[in-house]
Amino acid sequence: MIFFKNDYGQGCIDEIIDLMKEVNDESNPGYGEDDYTKKAIELIKSKMVDANPDIHFIVGGTQANLTVLKHILRPYEAVVCADTGHINSHETGAVEATGHKILAVPNSSGKVTPQYVRARYEESLMQVAHMVLPKAVYISNATEMGTVYSREELEALHNVCKELNMYLFMDGARLGAALMSGVDYTLNDIARWCDVFTIGGTKNGALFGEAIVINHPDLKPYFRFDLKQAGGMLAKGWLLGLQFIGLFEHDAYYKCAKHANDCAQKIQDAAVELGYPLYMKSDTNQIFLSVNDQQLEYLRARVDFEIWEYWNDSIIIRLVSSWHTTKEEVDYMIVYLKEASSLPEEDPEEVEKEFEAKENE
Amino acid sequence: MIFFKNDYGQGCIDEIIDLMKEVNDESNPGYGEDDYTKKAIELIKSKMVDANPDIHFIVGGTQANLTVLKHILRPYEAVVCADTGHINSHETGAVEATGHKILAVPNSSGKVTPQYVRARYEESLMQVAHMVLPKAVYISNATEMGTVYSREELEALHNVCKELNMYLFMDGARLGAALMSGVDYTLNDIARWCDVFTIGGTKNGALFGEAIVINHPDLKPYFRFDLKQAGGMLAKGWLLGLQFIGLFEHDAYYKCAKHANDCAQKIQDAAVELGYPLYMKSDTNQIFLSVNDQQLEYLRARVDFEIWEYWNDSIIIRLVSSWHTTKEEVDYMIVYLKEASSLPEEDPEEVEKEFEAKENE
Amino acid sequence: MIFFKNDYGQGCIDEIIDLMKEVNDESNPGYGEDDYTKKAIELIKSKMVDANPDIHFIVGGTQANLTVLKHILRPYEAVVCADTGHINSHETGAVEATGHKILAVPNSSGKVTPQYVRARYEESLMQVAHMVLPKAVYISNATEMGTVYSREELEALHNVCKELNMYLFMDGARLGAALMSGVDYTLNDIARWCDVFTIGGTKNGALFGEAIVINHPDLKPYFRFDLKQAGGMLAKGWLLGLQFIGLFEHDAYYKCAKHANDCAQKIQDAAVELGYPLYMKSDTNQIFLSVNDQQLEYLRARVDFEIWEYWNDSIIIRLVSSWHTTKEEVDYMIVYLKEASSLPEEDPEEVEKEFEAKENE
Amino acid sequence: MIFFKNDYGQGCIDEIIDLMKEVNDESNPGYGEDDYTKKAIELIKSKMVDANPDIHFIVGGTQANLTVLKHILRPYEAVVCADTGHINSHETGAVEATGHKILAVPNSSGKVTPQYVRARYEESLMQVAHMVLPKAVYISNATEMGTVYSREELEALHNVCKELNMYLFMDGARLGAALMSGVDYTLNDIARWCDVFTIGGTKNGALFGEAIVINHPDLKPYFRFDLKQAGGMLAKGWLLGLQFIGLFEHDAYYKCAKHANDCAQKIQDAAVELGYPLYMKSDTNQIFLSVNDQQLEYLRARVDFEIWEYWNDSIIIRLVSSWHTTKEEVDYMIVYLKEASSLPEEDPEEVEKEFEAKENE
Repeated sequence: MIFFKNDYGQGCIDEIIDLMKEVNDESNPGYGEDDYTKKAIELIKSKMVDANPDIHFIVGGTQANLTVLKHILRPYEAVVCADTGHINSHETGAVEATGHKILAVPNSSGKVTPQYVRARYEESLMQVAHMVLPKAVYISNATEMGTVYSREELEALHNVCKELNMYLFMDGARLGAALMSGVDYTLNDIARWCDVFTIGGTKNGALFGEAIVINHPDLKPYFRFDLKQAGGMLAKGWLLGLQFIGLFEHDAYYKCAKHANDCAQKIQDAAVELGYPLYMKSDTNQIFLSVNDQQLEYLRARVDFEIWEYWNDSIIIRLVSSWHTTKEEVDYMIVYLKEASSLPEEDPEEVEKEFEAKENE
Repeated sequence: MIFFKNDYGQGCIDEIIDLMKEVNDESNPGYGEDDYTKKAIELIKSKMVDANPDIHFIVGGTQANLTVLKHILRPYEAVVCADTGHINSHETGAVEATGHKILAVPNSSGKVTPQYVRARYEESLMQVAHMVLPKAVYISNATEMGTVYSREELEALHNVCKELNMYLFMDGARLGAALMSGVDYTLNDIARWCDVFTIGGTKNGALFGEAIVINHPDLKPYFRFDLKQAGGMLAKGWLLGLQFIGLFEHDAYYKCAKHANDCAQKIQDAAVELGYPLYMKSDTNQIFLSVNDQQLEYLRARVDFEIWEYWNDSIIIRLVSSWHTTKEEVDYMIVYLKEASSLPEEDPEEVEKEFEAKENE
Repeated sequence: MIFFKNDYGQGCIDEIIDLMKEVNDESNPGYGEDDYTKKAIELIKSKMVDANPDIHFIVGGTQANLTVLKHILRPYEAVVCADTGHINSHETGAVEATGHKILAVPNSSGKVTPQYVRARYEESLMQVAHMVLPKAVYISNATEMGTVYSREELEALHNVCKELNMYLFMDGARLGAALMSGVDYTLNDIARWCDVFTIGGTKNGALFGEAIVINHPDLKPYFRFDLKQAGGMLAKGWLLGLQFIGLFEHDAYYKCAKHANDCAQKIQDAAVELGYPLYMKSDTNQIFLSVNDQQLEYLRARVDFEIWEYWNDSIIIRLVSSWHTTKEEVDYMIVYLKEASSLPEEDPEEVEKEFEAKENE
Repeated sequence: MIFFKNDYGQGCIDEIIDLMKEVNDESNPGYGEDDYTKKAIELIKSKMVDANPDIHFIVGGTQANLTVLKHILRPYEAVVCADTGHINSHETGAVEATGHKILAVPNSSGKVTPQYVRARYEESLMQVAHMVLPKAVYISNATEMGTVYSREELEALHNVCKELNMYLFMDGARLGAALMSGVDYTLNDIARWCDVFTIGGTKNGALFGEAIVINHPDLKPYFRFDLKQAGGMLAKGWLLGLQFIGLFEHDAYYKCAKHANDCAQKIQDAAVELGYPLYMKSDTNQIFLSVNDQQLEYLRARVDFEIWEYWNDSIIIRLVSSWHTTKEEVDYMIVYLKEASSLPEEDPEEVEKEFEAKENE
């Protein structure tokens, strides 16, 4: 069974686990006030020379999202988000649990467009005080659909937020994949465009950990209070520092993402050639193929993956590669896709007969 | 200026204000523990002979909705609602402020359909524990669009809720209008179909007040605690009792609603005859007409009403009648609509000339 | 049965109910955007010539408190309050339900002292970010114990709040009673000392209604959003305007409070003379007497009042007068106290015999 | 500099880090649905043969507390807790942020007594629905003061909770220390007494992690939903399983705690012999000594520890040992205490002279 189920199915890169073992017996101050955390912060800041952010580390992504939004929004303020956005669909109402409405807008290949941001803002002016005030825009980059925002798209979102006095918040759970997908921007640009963003470790080679990067000066003060209140302040905080030292000291963060993207793209290319319809063309490490029942069964017996959605008569499967995916796994995956694509079409009568035969056994 | 802006623009029916004056100097226990409240509860219960509900009074509708949902939902549970539902669109995130997600579904003429309830429920099973659990369905009857649920629609919603172990909650801010729109069901039926519902006084002849009717036995205990916590327990609670005595002792509740419906329907019929497109055919006291710029200006100078939406090139206006609307107002309204429909079409050149002329004065 | 149970047991002064009847058929904009509301605001502002507050009206006191605190505090911020403070003891956790901790400190005759404010603030510095940040001080004036803050006490609280960058919030549910208790300050002074305060109508002659007076410029914006979200925006908002026109147009607010205070003080003086121990010396319309079992029974048969607390072997009863209390009621109350104070002491053996006799009947 | 600052200042026992390295390249299902998590649960359940709990793992203690309380309480329900309880004092209002009031009661050596539980419960009956309903009791064992509940105390709390229909919730962040302090009860007993409790890994040899043990059948369903919503569901959940396998497979959990206790108790005994007053007699790995300014300075230059409180003229310091404390550290600590206790008393005049001399330099 080869593994294409997700990008958080194995531990971490050797650098990190080795580092953890190495410092295991050292004594460190708790709650992120140690020197490893400081070093990790400096490493990340060195990638954003034009910015002067506050950086905090937190264990998980849902935690990061809810803590940031709770921190930056007043009670009556809301966050605009694609309907496919992680906070809207797969975090069990974590943002609403902090008291804030999510204004979900139709996604465009998993992305939020400035038009919808503006529309939601203008709509809220129709009945001032009777509707929530859209104050933040949440985007995921790479998106939950494997797509990536272009420079133009990000600048446009940045501009509309600026104009409407809203914050732009990027969930970077898979930001590595976005940055290594061939885009013409870097962390330094993102720090310029986003008021807050996260850099995800969990899905890109670390055991856990998201870096929360706060650029907007109004949003910096008192963040640690909200971090603690939300249960996000790790006692042995240096463990988070170690994850990001491991990712950024020798650019493993970029190498892991590049490797993951390459694996998935190679499979996607092969799939297209084999005639599998794509649910959406991905640029990163998550790809979405449309398969039929027979193909599903064939692949399921050989590959660990997720069914994403039932779509008319076909099934959308998601294949995810990671820093841990091997060349062999990619090769096997392509072979299985090839085999599945050339299965003899089932004769419904035959199927029924087989079924009956089994029943009579 | 005649008034068709809303159904809460004047005080209350004489019976109520007279009753208030009459008992003004009596001493009463506070917080709804007085005899007027008890009497009002008995009057309402007499309309639902097959039910044995708990009934509480509260001043306003947003308060009623947030208190009910906070009371009946566990933290991870969500409420399904039409995108046009009041809690989703015009209550400034009051439900989310209590920590709960609203699962908005596309409305069908302002209504929720069982298909969407089931779809949302099934979707939540795709990723158990990673998505909120749909546990309640919120419907407004009459809806925010002036439409009314049929007996079949309510039974179907009741059944799907029963099957999926969800609560059905009806916001009856305009329930009087629904009941008097010619439907073949009564309060007694509603008490059978809905686990909780409200009976709105504010928009149907009272100064304020909603009755919260709790039918599901699991939802009855401790409601007064949540009522107090949400700030909804009125000190001089008998005032709420008086409103509902005024509405139900001699059936003013029904008469007011019937009158309001008749007024609006007469105008809607006239508008259709005059060729005004309807945004949606209403059965109750709120009607929605499509007008052009010229018509809008003409009407605006003579009638107090609200612009509901800008829709392509036309403007949707909302006209609302109430217990307080007079025959004269209805007649004038129809005359104005007639006049507006036969305005000479403006010649753009003329308009420009007039404009220049004015400027040169 | 004479009534000394509370100060919200009857309707309202005639001016208000008459005004309500008078304007009952007028058409008004909803949600506090009407001219009566404007007029009421101007009347109140005329009492605070040195201030330029924003003023909003809301139906009830718990609602006022939770809405203000939700509006002025960030998630990690807390409010310091006397342990006897209404928000801490009798609002069913309404403030905590908005997410904020109440830092209760020992009361000094129902009051908060600057020493405790400072102590709580300094304590929070011991473990920065691991403890809530005290950001507001809540005081009730008059207090729940009938006592009143002096000018010096208020100035001292104002100064410590200023120094520690905290907001001073006064719950004025019984502010009239405080102002008419012989203090050397006015609403104008209070507006100078308090960042936010309320002026209570419910307990001083109105049917309902609290005015929320916001002085601190940072706290003014967007208040109506939080008001709506908390369910505190009354549809027929002019009704709240009418209450405060009735209270302030001809100074009924002051007259009602003066009358209530005089009634209670006369009873308190008589009680002291009769030898009843006071639980706390009151300056306003709520008095607290210590009685024994026999006295309790005697009074209970004749007077409607509340038992406040069981205190060692005695019972503390609360007697509350109001704008509605009559001279006759005061006279009777004093007579009953006199009679109760001279009851023949019960012979315990007799009591037991009587009890047995009854049982054998 | 020797380390007695806390019990979470180093990584973890070798067994755990080795296990983590060993399984680092395996593929595992996420979110706690892996076999390591199952194994860890079975190991823990084997210590409670008479119970049949649901067990969940979570990264941190504050997270555990807020998630449990949010899960078990209805909006109007509150938790009784010692004023020194961690949730009341050092979690930045995390519980209140979920909407619930903490009813803090005076601690008795860091403990909650049944008398106060009953008192708070009875108080809440004085004004039903106007006060929160005490529904849970939170205790820490060992307490924040290093003390331990006896079997009798726990049985008494269990009984009062049963009688009053309340849940007993034990925060076991330092439960190992309690169990190894010589008490006559085990995890199996605790599972019988507590409706929910936690078993802390972070402070007893693991990198992180608390096991949440749910015994009351009503509290088991849907816990994973609240876990996810609160941000407490770790993506690579097997890491938590590994921590508890490491702690329970060969009873490291008990050995670590025993070792830590022994170290601290040895120091406490020495301190008493040397004449240091104790702030509170500890039975576990946290001890609290009273020192003077001179002693503080002397110790501070040699030992990493925390100042707990300023108490009259003396300073309370907290010394904490752990699984990681060495015999050498204990010996040094005792030597330093000995030296500090025999410092020549400072001559105030000398101090002043020295000070002036320095100033004139």
